[in-house]
Amino acid sequence: MAETNDPQLQEFRDSIDNIDAALIYLLSERFKVTKKVGELKAERDYPAADREREAEQIARLRDLAKAANLDPDFSEKILEFIIAEVIRDHEKIKSGG
Amino acid sequence: MAETNDPQLQEFRDSIDNIDAALIYLLSERFKVTKKVGELKAERDYPAADREREAEQIARLRDLAKAANLDPDFSEKILEFIIAEVIRDHEKIKSGG
Repeated sequence: MAETNDPQLQEFRDSIDNIDAALIYLLSERFKVTKKVGELKAERDYPAADREREAEQIARLRDLAKAANLDPDFSEKILEFIIAEVIRDHEKIKSGG
Repeated sequence: MAETNDPQLQEFRDSIDNIDAALIYLLSERFKVTKKVGELKAERDYPAADREREAEQIARLRDLAKAANLDPDFSEKILEFIIAEVIRDHEKIKSGG
């Protein structure tokens, strides 16, 4: 059977597509909240990055990943990637951009 | 006020932590499905990577990101990061590892 006509593969791919849509909408919610955090930090003159908070987030996420049977290293890398994007946003807010 | 004692900041961070937990559990579900895809591909001798499918996923995700008011480039980078991890998994499954 050709891969593209395999109904079992299509069923799995439909589930992946649904999960990806949910991930995108959740990420959008997350950026809404981090934008508010950035505005608050700029308004109250807190630093854009907070290493202690990040360390706590990463430790918590690694525990959650283990509970969810997900590779903790992979989860940490994803979070770091998201946090880097958030910090770029916060610096833009702080510089009034 | 010290940043760590700011109740408004704490409220935002609690929301971020809840969203991160949801993201982790969703990612875990996603990997469950891609693992099944990997097993199916190995069993039916389909190639581990499928550039056409990936291109479709990325185009769809960029549209979803725009609808969710999220940066499409950022969303694409996240998906590519996840897909790279999935392909590593599939190659492991294929080589029986």
